[in-house]
Amino acid sequence: MTTSVSDKSWGECLSVAVEVARRAGKVVQEAVKHEKSVSSKSTPTDLVTETDQQVEELIISTLRERFPSHRYIGEESSAAGEKCILTDNPTWIIDPIDGTCNFVHSFPMVAVSIGFAVKKELEFGVIYHCFDGTLYTARKGHGAFCNGARIQVSKEKDVSKALILTEIGAKRDPATLNIFSGNIMKLLSAPAHGVRIIGSSTLALCLIATGAAEAYYQFGLHCWDIAAAAVIIREAGGVVIDTSGGPLDLMSRRVVAAGTLEMANYIVQNLESISYERDDSDPGVQK
Amino acid sequence: MTTSVSDKSWGECLSVAVEVARRAGKVVQEAVKHEKSVSSKSTPTDLVTETDQQVEELIISTLRERFPSHRYIGEESSAAGEKCILTDNPTWIIDPIDGTCNFVHSFPMVAVSIGFAVKKELEFGVIYHCFDGTLYTARKGHGAFCNGARIQVSKEKDVSKALILTEIGAKRDPATLNIFSGNIMKLLSAPAHGVRIIGSSTLALCLIATGAAEAYYQFGLHCWDIAAAAVIIREAGGVVIDTSGGPLDLMSRRVVAAGTLEMANYIVQNLESISYERDDSDPGVQK
Repeated sequence: MTTSVSDKSWGECLSVAVEVARRAGKVVQEAVKHEKSVSSKSTPTDLVTETDQQVEELIISTLRERFPSHRYIGEESSAAGEKCILTDNPTWIIDPIDGTCNFVHSFPMVAVSIGFAVKKELEFGVIYHCFDGTLYTARKGHGAFCNGARIQVSKEKDVSKALILTEIGAKRDPATLNIFSGNIMKLLSAPAHGVRIIGSSTLALCLIATGAAEAYYQFGLHCWDIAAAAVIIREAGGVVIDTSGGPLDLMSRRVVAAGTLEMANYIVQNLESISYERDDSDPGVQK
Repeated sequence: MTTSVSDKSWGECLSVAVEVARRAGKVVQEAVKHEKSVSSKSTPTDLVTETDQQVEELIISTLRERFPSHRYIGEESSAAGEKCILTDNPTWIIDPIDGTCNFVHSFPMVAVSIGFAVKKELEFGVIYHCFDGTLYTARKGHGAFCNGARIQVSKEKDVSKALILTEIGAKRDPATLNIFSGNIMKLLSAPAHGVRIIGSSTLALCLIATGAAEAYYQFGLHCWDIAAAAVIIREAGGVVIDTSGGPLDLMSRRVVAAGTLEMANYIVQNLESISYERDDSDPGVQK
Protein backbone atom coordinates (compact mmCIF):
# COMPACT_ATOMS: atom_id res chain seq x y z
CA MET A 1 0.00 0.00 0.00
CA THR A 2 1.30 3.47 -0.76
CA THR A 3 0.58 6.46 1.42
CA SER A 4 -1.49 8.53 -0.97
CA VAL A 5 -3.24 10.61 1.66
CA SER A 6 -1.84 14.15 1.93
CA ASP A 7 -0.33 15.65 5.08
CA LYS A 8 -3.59 17.56 5.62
CA SER A 9 -5.32 14.25 6.24
CA TRP A 10 -3.20 13.49 9.28
CA GLY A 11 -4.88 16.51 10.87
CA GLU A 12 -8.20 14.93 10.02
CA CYS A 13 -7.02 11.67 11.60
CA LEU A 14 -6.04 13.65 14.70
CA SER A 15 -9.56 15.08 15.00
CA VAL A 16 -11.03 11.59 14.81
CA ALA A 17 -8.48 10.40 17.39
CA VAL A 18 -9.53 13.13 19.82
CA GLU A 19 -13.19 12.26 19.37
CA VAL A 20 -12.65 8.53 19.90
CA ALA A 21 -10.25 9.05 22.85
CA ARG A 22 -12.88 11.14 24.63
CA ARG A 23 -15.56 8.57 23.92
CA ALA A 24 -13.36 5.69 25.09
CA GLY A 25 -12.30 7.71 28.15
CA LYS A 26 -15.92 8.16 29.17
CA VAL A 27 -16.52 4.40 28.92
CA VAL A 28 -13.50 3.86 31.21
CA GLN A 29 -14.72 6.57 33.60
CA GLU A 30 -18.10 4.86 33.84
CA ALA A 31 -16.53 1.40 34.26
CA VAL A 32 -14.48 2.63 37.24
CA LYS A 33 -17.69 2.76 39.29
CA HIS A 34 -18.43 -0.93 38.77
CA GLU A 35 -16.92 -4.24 39.87
CA LYS A 36 -14.02 -5.19 37.56
CA SER A 37 -13.35 -8.66 36.24
CA VAL A 38 -9.56 -8.89 36.55
CA SER A 39 -7.13 -11.43 35.14
CA SER A 40 -3.36 -11.35 34.64
CA LYS A 41 -1.10 -11.48 31.57
CA SER A 42 2.69 -11.87 31.58
CA THR A 43 3.06 -11.86 35.39
CA PRO A 44 0.62 -12.02 38.36
CA THR A 45 0.80 -8.23 38.67
CA ASP A 46 0.41 -7.51 34.91
CA LEU A 47 -3.36 -7.02 35.04
CA VAL A 48 -6.04 -6.87 32.39
CA THR A 49 -9.81 -6.38 32.66
CA GLU A 50 -12.75 -6.93 30.34
CA THR A 51 -12.91 -3.15 30.00
CA ASP A 52 -9.40 -3.02 28.46
CA GLN A 53 -10.57 -5.38 25.74
CA GLN A 54 -13.95 -3.67 25.21
CA VAL A 55 -12.41 -0.21 24.98
CA GLU A 56 -9.71 -1.32 22.54
CA GLU A 57 -12.40 -2.94 20.40
CA LEU A 58 -14.43 0.29 20.51
CA ILE A 59 -11.42 2.40 19.48
CA ILE A 60 -10.12 0.13 16.72
CA SER A 61 -13.52 -0.64 15.19
CA THR A 62 -14.39 3.08 15.10
CA LEU A 63 -11.07 3.97 13.49
CA ARG A 64 -11.07 1.01 11.09
CA GLU A 65 -14.45 2.05 9.76
CA ARG A 66 -13.04 5.50 8.93
CA PHE A 67 -9.58 4.35 7.86
CA PRO A 68 -9.90 0.77 6.60
CA SER A 69 -6.49 0.71 4.89
CA HIS A 70 -4.55 1.75 8.00
CA ARG A 71 -2.80 -0.66 10.35
CA TYR A 72 -3.58 -1.01 14.04
CA ILE A 73 -1.36 -1.98 16.96
CA GLY A 74 -3.19 -2.28 20.26
CA GLU A 75 -2.21 -3.52 23.70
CA GLU A 76 -4.97 -6.12 23.88
CA SER A 77 -4.80 -7.28 20.24
CA SER A 78 -1.08 -7.78 20.80
CA ALA A 79 -1.70 -9.72 24.03
CA ALA A 80 -4.11 -11.88 21.99
CA GLY A 81 -1.24 -12.77 19.64
CA GLU A 82 -1.46 -10.18 16.85
CA LYS A 83 1.85 -9.10 15.37
CA CYS A 84 3.23 -5.87 16.75
CA ILE A 85 5.34 -4.65 13.86
CA LEU A 86 5.69 -1.10 12.62
CA THR A 87 5.67 -0.81 8.81
CA ASP A 88 5.70 2.25 6.53
CA ASN A 89 1.89 2.19 6.39
CA PRO A 90 -0.13 4.66 8.45
CA THR A 91 -0.37 2.89 11.81
CA TRP A 92 -2.45 3.61 14.90
CA ILE A 93 -0.79 2.61 18.19
CA ILE A 94 -3.35 2.28 20.95
CA ASP A 95 -3.46 1.76 24.69
CA PRO A 96 -7.14 1.55 25.67
CA ILE A 97 -6.40 1.78 29.41
CA ASP A 98 -2.97 2.90 30.44
CA GLY A 99 -2.70 2.25 34.17
CA THR A 100 -4.83 -0.90 34.31
CA CYS A 101 -3.70 -1.62 37.88
CA ASN A 102 -4.81 1.91 38.84
CA PHE A 103 -8.10 1.34 37.01
CA VAL A 104 -8.68 -1.89 38.98
CA HIS A 105 -8.21 0.07 42.23
CA SER A 106 -10.02 3.23 41.06
CA PHE A 107 -6.72 5.03 41.68
CA PRO A 108 -7.26 8.26 39.75
CA MET A 109 -4.43 8.00 37.17
CA VAL A 110 -5.76 6.23 34.11
CA ALA A 111 -5.56 7.27 30.46
CA VAL A 112 -6.51 6.38 26.92
CA SER A 113 -3.53 6.78 24.58
CA ILE A 114 -3.67 6.96 20.78
CA GLY A 115 -0.54 7.49 18.71
CA PHE A 116 -0.21 7.59 14.94
CA ALA A 117 2.84 6.84 12.81
CA VAL A 118 3.50 7.05 9.06
CA LYS A 119 6.66 5.64 7.49
CA LYS A 120 7.70 4.67 11.01
CA GLU A 121 7.63 8.36 12.04
CA LEU A 122 5.27 9.45 14.82
CA GLU A 123 2.86 12.05 13.43
CA PHE A 124 0.52 12.82 16.33
CA GLY A 125 -0.54 11.72 19.79
CA VAL A 126 -3.69 12.02 21.88
CA ILE A 127 -3.87 11.15 25.59
CA TYR A 128 -7.09 11.47 27.59
CA HIS A 129 -7.01 11.38 31.41
CA CYS A 130 -10.10 9.33 32.25
CA PHE A 131 -10.56 10.68 35.78
CA ASP A 132 -10.28 14.44 35.33
CA GLY A 133 -10.95 14.68 31.59
CA THR A 134 -7.67 16.43 30.77
CA LEU A 135 -6.84 16.07 27.08
CA TYR A 136 -3.23 16.17 25.84
CA THR A 137 -2.65 16.47 22.10
CA ALA A 138 0.24 17.14 19.74
CA ARG A 139 0.90 16.94 16.03
CA LYS A 140 4.39 16.98 14.55
CA GLY A 141 5.40 20.55 13.83
CA HIS A 142 2.24 22.04 15.35
CA GLY A 143 3.03 22.18 19.09
CA ALA A 144 1.70 20.36 22.14
CA PHE A 145 -1.47 21.22 24.03
CA CYS A 146 -3.24 20.44 27.29
CA ASN A 147 -6.97 21.15 26.99
CA GLY A 148 -6.16 23.36 24.03
CA ALA A 149 -3.53 25.46 25.84
CA ARG A 150 0.07 25.31 24.65
CA ILE A 151 2.37 23.36 26.99
CA GLN A 152 6.11 23.42 27.47
CA VAL A 153 8.66 21.19 29.21
CA SER A 154 10.86 22.27 32.11
CA LYS A 155 14.17 23.75 30.98
CA GLU A 156 16.01 22.61 34.12
CA LYS A 157 19.39 20.98 33.50
CA ASP A 158 20.49 20.39 37.08
CA VAL A 159 19.42 17.02 38.51
CA SER A 160 19.59 18.38 42.06
CA LYS A 161 16.57 20.51 41.15
CA ALA A 162 14.72 17.74 39.35
CA LEU A 163 11.57 15.78 40.05
CA ILE A 164 11.92 12.41 38.35
CA LEU A 165 9.17 9.99 37.39
CA THR A 166 9.38 6.27 36.78
CA GLU A 167 7.29 3.10 36.89
CA ILE A 168 7.87 -0.33 38.37
CA GLY A 169 7.32 -2.58 35.34
CA ALA A 170 5.82 -6.05 35.22
CA LYS A 171 8.92 -8.08 36.20
CA ARG A 172 9.17 -8.51 39.95
CA ASP A 173 11.97 -11.07 40.38
CA PRO A 174 14.61 -10.12 43.00
CA ALA A 175 17.31 -9.29 40.43
CA THR A 176 15.01 -6.91 38.52
CA LEU A 177 13.73 -5.31 41.71
CA ASN A 178 17.32 -4.74 42.84
CA ILE A 179 18.18 -2.87 39.65
CA PHE A 180 14.88 -0.95 39.80
CA SER A 181 15.59 0.10 43.35
CA GLY A 182 19.29 0.83 42.72
CA ASN A 183 18.35 3.24 39.92
CA ILE A 184 15.97 5.15 42.18
CA MET A 185 18.45 5.28 45.05
CA LYS A 186 21.17 6.65 42.76
CA LEU A 187 18.91 9.49 41.59
CA LEU A 188 17.70 10.24 45.12
CA SER A 189 21.34 10.43 46.22
CA ALA A 190 22.20 12.84 43.39
CA PRO A 191 20.17 14.32 45.17
CA ALA A 192 17.15 14.80 42.93
CA HIS A 193 14.27 16.67 44.59
CA GLY A 194 12.23 13.50 44.50
CA VAL A 195 10.99 10.47 42.63
CA ARG A 196 7.32 9.84 41.89
CA ILE A 197 5.57 6.65 40.78
CA ILE A 198 1.99 7.27 39.65
CA GLY A 199 1.20 3.99 37.87
CA SER A 200 0.45 5.42 34.42
CA SER A 201 3.36 5.79 31.99
CA THR A 202 1.41 7.96 29.57
CA LEU A 203 0.21 10.40 32.24
CA ALA A 204 3.70 10.53 33.75
CA LEU A 205 5.05 11.38 30.28
CA CYS A 206 2.36 14.07 29.90
CA LEU A 207 3.60 15.58 33.17
CA ILE A 208 7.05 15.83 31.59
CA ALA A 209 5.41 17.63 28.66
CA THR A 210 3.71 20.17 30.95
CA GLY A 211 6.95 20.78 32.85
CA ALA A 212 5.57 19.37 36.13
CA ALA A 213 8.57 17.03 36.32
CA GLU A 214 12.00 17.08 34.71
CA ALA A 215 12.57 13.50 33.62
CA TYR A 216 10.98 10.11 33.15
CA TYR A 217 12.60 6.76 32.56
CA GLN A 218 11.31 3.25 32.35
CA PHE A 219 12.23 -0.27 31.37
CA GLY A 220 9.39 -2.61 30.43
CA LEU A 221 6.85 -0.24 28.96
CA HIS A 222 5.37 -0.88 25.51
CA CYS A 223 5.14 0.99 22.20
CA TRP A 224 1.53 1.95 23.02
CA ASP A 225 2.74 3.65 26.22
CA ILE A 226 5.27 5.80 24.35
CA ALA A 227 3.84 6.48 20.88
CA ALA A 228 1.38 9.30 21.64
CA ALA A 229 3.42 10.72 24.53
CA ALA A 230 6.64 10.93 22.49
CA VAL A 231 5.03 13.38 20.03
CA ILE A 232 3.51 15.38 22.89
CA ILE A 233 6.85 15.72 24.73
CA ARG A 234 8.83 16.58 21.58
CA GLU A 235 6.29 19.18 20.52
CA ALA A 236 6.46 20.62 24.05
CA GLY A 237 10.21 21.10 23.48
CA GLY A 238 11.49 17.98 25.22
CA VAL A 239 13.55 14.96 24.26
CA VAL A 240 12.58 11.30 24.12
CA ILE A 241 15.48 8.91 23.67
CA ASP A 242 16.60 5.36 24.30
CA THR A 243 18.03 4.47 27.72
CA SER A 244 21.36 3.94 25.93
CA GLY A 245 21.38 7.60 24.89
CA GLY A 246 20.63 6.76 21.23
CA PRO A 247 17.46 7.53 19.29
CA LEU A 248 14.15 6.21 20.63
CA ASP A 249 13.35 2.72 19.44
CA LEU A 250 9.58 2.44 19.81
CA MET A 251 9.71 -1.36 20.12
CA SER A 252 12.63 -1.58 22.56
CA ARG A 253 10.50 -1.26 25.71
CA ARG A 254 12.71 1.39 27.28
CA VAL A 255 12.76 5.15 27.29
CA VAL A 256 14.21 8.27 28.82
CA ALA A 257 12.21 11.47 28.41
CA ALA A 258 13.21 14.86 29.73
CA GLY A 259 12.78 18.59 29.28
CA THR A 260 16.42 19.03 28.27
CA LEU A 261 19.04 16.86 26.59
CA GLU A 262 21.38 17.50 29.54
CA MET A 263 18.82 16.09 31.98
CA ALA A 264 18.10 13.12 29.69
CA ASN A 265 21.82 12.37 29.37
CA TYR A 266 22.31 12.53 33.14
CA ILE A 267 19.58 9.92 33.57
CA VAL A 268 21.02 7.77 30.77
CA GLN A 269 24.45 7.80 32.42
CA ASN A 270 23.06 6.79 35.78
CA LEU A 271 20.74 3.94 34.85
CA GLU A 272 21.46 0.28 35.08
CA SER A 273 19.52 -1.50 32.35
CA ILE A 274 16.68 -4.01 32.80
CA SER A 275 16.07 -6.15 29.75
CA TYR A 276 12.61 -6.98 28.43
CA GLU A 277 11.59 -8.91 25.31
CA ARG A 278 11.05 -6.45 22.42
CA ASP A 279 7.50 -5.57 21.37
CA ASP A 280 8.20 -6.76 17.81
CA SER A 281 9.54 -10.15 18.82
CA ASP A 282 7.54 -13.23 17.82
CA PRO A 283 3.97 -13.08 19.11
CA GLY A 284 3.23 -15.62 21.77
CA VAL A 285 6.61 -15.07 23.40
CA GLN A 286 6.07 -13.96 26.97
CA LYS A 287 6.97 -10.29 27.19
CA MET B 1 -8.20 26.96 80.13
CA THR B 2 -11.26 24.69 80.32
CA THR B 3 -13.10 23.47 77.28
CA SER B 4 -16.44 25.16 77.84
CA VAL B 5 -17.60 25.04 74.24
CA SER B 6 -20.18 22.30 73.59
CA ASP B 7 -19.75 19.46 71.09
CA LYS B 8 -22.00 21.33 68.69
CA SER B 9 -19.34 23.99 68.36
CA TRP B 10 -16.83 21.57 66.86
CA GLY B 11 -19.24 21.34 63.93
CA GLU B 12 -19.08 25.11 63.72
CA CYS B 13 -15.27 24.94 63.81
CA LEU B 14 -15.42 22.40 60.99
CA SER B 15 -17.46 24.78 58.83
CA VAL B 16 -14.90 27.52 59.39
CA ALA B 17 -12.10 25.04 58.59
CA VAL B 18 -13.74 24.14 55.27
CA GLU B 19 -14.12 27.80 54.37
CA VAL B 20 -10.53 28.70 55.22
CA ALA B 21 -9.11 25.54 53.54
CA ARG B 22 -10.87 26.46 50.30
CA ARG B 23 -9.64 30.03 50.53
CA ALA B 24 -6.07 28.93 51.27
CA GLY B 25 -6.24 26.32 48.51
CA LYS B 26 -7.16 28.98 45.99
CA VAL B 27 -4.17 31.08 47.04
CA VAL B 28 -1.93 28.03 46.50
CA GLN B 29 -3.60 27.31 43.14
CA GLU B 30 -2.90 30.86 42.01
CA ALA B 31 0.69 30.76 43.31
CA VAL B 32 1.41 27.62 41.26
CA LYS B 33 1.31 29.77 38.12
CA HIS B 34 4.11 32.04 39.30
CA GLU B 35 7.83 31.73 39.95
CA LYS B 36 8.46 30.26 43.41
CA SER B 37 11.09 31.47 45.83
CA VAL B 38 12.42 28.18 47.20
CA SER B 39 14.65 27.48 50.19
CA SER B 40 15.37 24.33 52.18
CA LYS B 41 14.79 23.31 55.81
CA SER B 42 16.13 20.17 57.51
CA THR B 43 17.82 18.75 54.38
CA PRO B 44 18.57 20.08 50.84
CA THR B 45 15.44 18.31 49.57
CA ASP B 46 13.14 19.45 52.42
CA LEU B 47 11.80 22.48 50.59
CA VAL B 48 9.85 25.52 51.70
CA THR B 49 8.55 28.52 49.76
CA GLU B 50 7.27 31.95 50.67
CA THR B 51 3.81 30.68 49.80
CA ASP B 52 3.95 28.02 52.57
CA GLN B 53 4.56 30.78 55.10
CA GLN B 54 1.98 33.18 53.64
CA VAL B 55 -0.72 30.52 53.48
CA GLU B 56 -0.08 29.32 57.03
CA GLU B 57 -0.28 32.93 58.22
CA LEU B 58 -3.57 33.36 56.33
CA ILE B 59 -5.05 30.20 57.86
CA ILE B 60 -3.90 30.77 61.44
CA SER B 61 -4.75 34.48 61.55
CA THR B 62 -8.26 33.78 60.19
CA LEU B 63 -8.85 30.98 62.72
CA ARG B 64 -7.27 32.86 65.63
CA GLU B 65 -9.62 35.78 65.06
CA ARG B 66 -12.61 33.43 65.36
CA PHE B 67 -11.16 31.18 68.07
CA PRO B 68 -8.66 33.26 70.05
CA SER B 69 -8.43 30.82 72.97
CA HIS B 70 -7.52 27.81 70.82
CA ARG B 71 -3.98 26.59 70.25
CA TYR B 72 -2.32 26.33 66.84
CA ILE B 73 0.31 23.94 65.53
CA GLY B 74 1.50 24.70 62.02
CA GLU B 75 4.27 23.37 59.84
CA GLU B 76 5.88 26.75 59.26
CA SER B 77 5.40 28.12 62.80
CA SER B 78 7.05 24.94 64.02
CA ALA B 79 9.92 25.31 61.55
CA ALA B 80 10.31 28.85 62.90
CA GLY B 81 10.85 27.42 66.40
CA GLU B 82 7.36 27.36 67.96
CA LYS B 83 6.67 24.48 70.31
CA CYS B 84 4.82 21.58 68.76
CA ILE B 85 3.09 20.09 71.79
CA LEU B 86 -0.42 18.72 71.97
CA THR B 87 -2.28 19.73 75.17
CA ASP B 88 -5.90 19.13 76.24
CA ASN B 89 -6.89 22.50 74.76
CA PRO B 90 -8.70 22.68 71.45
CA THR B 91 -5.83 22.61 68.95
CA TRP B 92 -5.68 23.23 65.23
CA ILE B 93 -2.99 21.26 63.39
CA ILE B 94 -2.22 22.82 60.03
CA ASP B 95 -0.22 22.04 56.92
CA PRO B 96 -0.59 25.04 54.60
CA ILE B 97 0.98 23.23 51.62
CA ASP B 98 1.35 19.48 51.85
CA GLY B 99 3.53 18.44 48.95
CA THR B 100 5.78 21.51 48.84
CA CYS B 101 8.21 19.78 46.46
CA ASN B 102 5.24 19.05 44.15
CA PHE B 103 4.12 22.66 44.51
CA VAL B 104 7.58 23.89 43.50
CA HIS B 105 7.38 21.77 40.33
CA SER B 106 3.66 22.40 39.68
CA PHE B 107 3.23 18.64 39.99
CA PRO B 108 -0.53 18.38 40.51
CA MET B 109 -0.64 16.76 43.97
CA VAL B 110 -0.75 19.51 46.58
CA ALA B 111 -3.13 19.98 49.49
CA VAL B 112 -4.10 22.19 52.40
CA SER B 113 -4.65 20.11 55.55
CA ILE B 114 -6.44 21.28 58.70
CA GLY B 115 -6.95 18.91 61.63
CA PHE B 116 -8.55 19.69 64.98
CA ALA B 117 -7.99 17.95 68.32
CA VAL B 118 -9.59 18.37 71.73
CA LYS B 119 -8.19 16.66 74.85
CA LYS B 120 -5.60 15.11 72.53
CA GLU B 121 -8.38 13.39 70.54
CA LEU B 122 -8.76 14.21 66.85
CA GLU B 123 -12.24 15.67 66.27
CA PHE B 124 -12.31 16.57 62.59
CA GLY B 125 -10.19 16.91 59.49
CA VAL B 126 -10.37 18.93 56.28
CA ILE B 127 -8.11 18.38 53.26
CA TYR B 128 -8.38 20.45 50.10
CA HIS B 129 -6.68 19.32 46.87
CA CYS B 130 -5.36 22.60 45.45
CA PHE B 131 -5.16 21.42 41.82
CA ASP B 132 -8.53 19.81 41.24
CA GLY B 133 -10.49 21.37 44.11
CA THR B 134 -11.52 18.05 45.68
CA LEU B 135 -12.54 18.54 49.31
CA TYR B 136 -12.20 15.72 51.87
CA THR B 137 -13.89 16.18 55.23
CA ALA B 138 -14.70 14.08 58.28
CA ARG B 139 -15.94 14.66 61.80
CA LYS B 140 -15.66 12.03 64.52
CA GLY B 141 -18.81 9.92 64.53
CA HIS B 142 -20.29 11.63 61.48
CA GLY B 143 -18.64 9.81 58.54
CA ALA B 144 -16.12 10.83 55.90
CA PHE B 145 -16.88 12.69 52.68
CA CYS B 146 -15.32 13.60 49.37
CA ASN B 147 -17.02 16.65 47.86
CA GLY B 148 -19.99 15.90 50.10
CA ALA B 149 -20.38 12.25 49.04
CA ARG B 150 -19.78 9.53 51.62
CA ILE B 151 -16.51 7.63 51.13
CA GLN B 152 -15.38 4.22 52.28
CA VAL B 153 -12.06 2.40 52.51
CA SER B 154 -11.19 -0.79 50.61
CA LYS B 155 -12.08 -3.94 52.56
CA GLU B 156 -9.29 -5.98 50.94
CA LYS B 157 -7.25 -8.08 53.40
CA ASP B 158 -4.94 -9.84 50.93
CA VAL B 159 -1.70 -7.96 50.22
CA SER B 160 -1.36 -9.68 46.84
CA LYS B 161 -4.38 -7.65 45.75
CA ALA B 162 -3.20 -4.41 47.32
CA LEU B 163 -2.04 -1.10 45.98
CA ILE B 164 0.28 0.45 48.55
CA LEU B 165 1.26 4.09 48.93
CA THR B 166 4.29 5.58 50.62
CA GLU B 167 6.55 8.63 50.57
CA ILE B 168 10.30 9.08 50.53
CA GLY B 169 10.84 11.33 53.55
CA ALA B 170 13.42 14.06 54.02
CA LYS B 171 16.39 11.90 55.08
CA ARG B 172 18.42 10.78 52.07
CA ASP B 173 21.54 9.25 53.63
CA PRO B 174 22.51 5.83 52.21
CA ALA B 175 21.42 3.87 55.31
CA THR B 176 17.95 5.48 55.30
CA LEU B 177 17.55 5.02 51.56
CA ASN B 178 18.48 1.35 51.93
CA ILE B 179 15.74 0.77 54.49
CA PHE B 180 13.27 2.82 52.43
CA SER B 181 14.02 0.76 49.36
CA GLY B 182 14.10 -2.57 51.24
CA ASN B 183 10.59 -1.91 52.56
CA ILE B 184 9.25 -1.25 49.06
CA MET B 185 11.00 -4.30 47.61
CA LYS B 186 9.55 -6.54 50.32
CA LEU B 187 6.02 -5.38 49.55
CA LEU B 188 6.53 -5.67 45.78
CA SER B 189 7.77 -9.21 46.32
CA ALA B 190 4.71 -10.11 48.39
CA PRO B 191 3.63 -9.46 45.58
CA ALA B 192 1.49 -6.39 46.12
CA HIS B 193 -0.19 -5.11 42.94
CA GLY B 194 1.99 -2.04 43.09
CA VAL B 195 3.52 0.80 45.05
CA ARG B 196 2.81 4.45 44.32
CA ILE B 197 4.64 7.58 45.46
CA ILE B 198 2.71 10.76 44.75
CA GLY B 199 4.59 13.28 46.91
CA SER B 200 1.70 14.37 49.14
CA SER B 201 1.12 12.38 52.35
CA THR B 202 -2.29 13.91 52.98
CA LEU B 203 -3.60 13.20 49.48
CA ALA B 204 -2.17 9.67 49.62
CA LEU B 205 -4.01 9.18 52.91
CA CYS B 206 -7.21 10.54 51.33
CA LEU B 207 -6.83 7.91 48.59
CA ILE B 208 -6.80 5.27 51.35
CA ALA B 209 -10.04 6.81 52.64
CA THR B 210 -11.73 6.61 49.22
CA GLY B 211 -10.62 2.99 48.78
CA ALA B 212 -8.37 3.82 45.79
CA ALA B 213 -5.48 2.10 47.56
CA GLU B 214 -5.29 -0.44 50.37
CA ALA B 215 -2.49 0.81 52.59
CA TYR B 216 -0.15 3.69 53.30
CA TYR B 217 2.93 3.80 55.45
CA GLN B 218 5.56 6.39 56.12
CA PHE B 219 8.45 7.28 58.35
CA GLY B 220 9.33 10.95 58.64
CA LEU B 221 6.00 12.65 58.14
CA HIS B 222 4.71 15.17 60.70
CA CYS B 223 1.64 15.57 62.91
CA TRP B 224 0.22 18.11 60.41
CA ASP B 225 0.40 15.45 57.68
CA ILE B 226 -1.60 12.93 59.71
CA ALA B 227 -4.02 14.91 61.90
CA ALA B 228 -6.79 15.69 59.40
CA ALA B 229 -6.28 12.52 57.36
CA ALA B 230 -6.49 10.21 60.40
CA VAL B 231 -10.06 11.34 61.13
CA ILE B 232 -11.00 11.04 57.46
CA ILE B 233 -9.65 7.46 57.19
CA ARG B 234 -11.19 6.31 60.46
CA GLU B 235 -14.57 7.78 59.56
CA ALA B 236 -14.29 6.02 56.19
CA GLY B 237 -13.96 2.75 58.12
CA GLY B 238 -10.19 2.37 58.05
CA VAL B 239 -7.44 2.08 60.61
CA VAL B 240 -4.56 4.43 61.40
CA ILE B 241 -1.92 3.00 63.69
CA ASP B 242 1.73 3.27 64.64
CA THR B 243 4.31 1.41 62.55
CA SER B 244 4.90 -0.76 65.66
CA GLY B 245 1.27 -1.93 65.49
CA GLY B 246 0.28 0.08 68.56
CA PRO B 247 -2.04 3.09 68.68
CA LEU B 248 -1.20 6.11 66.53
CA ASP B 249 1.14 8.57 68.24
CA LEU B 250 0.54 11.84 66.42
CA MET B 251 4.00 13.16 67.30
CA SER B 252 5.99 10.01 66.49
CA ARG B 253 6.47 10.82 62.79
CA ARG B 254 5.42 7.38 61.61
CA VAL B 255 2.17 5.84 60.52
CA VAL B 256 0.47 2.88 58.92
CA ALA B 257 -3.01 3.44 57.51
CA ALA B 258 -5.15 0.82 55.81
CA GLY B 259 -8.67 -0.15 54.94
CA THR B 260 -8.54 -3.21 57.20
CA LEU B 261 -6.66 -4.13 60.37
CA GLU B 262 -5.37 -7.27 58.63
CA MET B 263 -3.79 -5.19 55.86
CA ALA B 264 -2.35 -2.70 58.39
CA ASN B 265 -0.87 -5.55 60.44
CA TYR B 266 0.70 -7.13 57.37
CA ILE B 267 2.43 -3.83 56.59
CA VAL B 268 3.50 -3.42 60.24
CA GLN B 269 5.08 -6.88 60.25
CA ASN B 270 7.00 -6.23 57.05
CA LEU B 271 8.48 -2.81 57.72
CA GLU B 272 11.94 -2.02 58.89
CA SER B 273 11.83 1.18 60.92
CA ILE B 274 13.46 4.52 60.07
CA SER B 275 13.88 6.80 63.06
CA TYR B 276 13.14 10.52 62.97
CA GLU B 277 13.24 13.08 65.80
CA ARG B 278 9.75 13.38 67.35
CA ASP B 279 7.62 16.41 66.49
CA ASP B 280 7.34 17.33 70.20
CA SER B 281 11.07 17.24 70.86
CA ASP B 282 12.81 20.51 71.73
CA PRO B 283 12.25 23.15 69.08
CA GLY B 284 15.37 24.06 67.19
CA VAL B 285 16.51 20.45 67.06
CA GLN B 286 16.90 19.43 63.42
CA LYS B 287 14.03 17.07 62.58
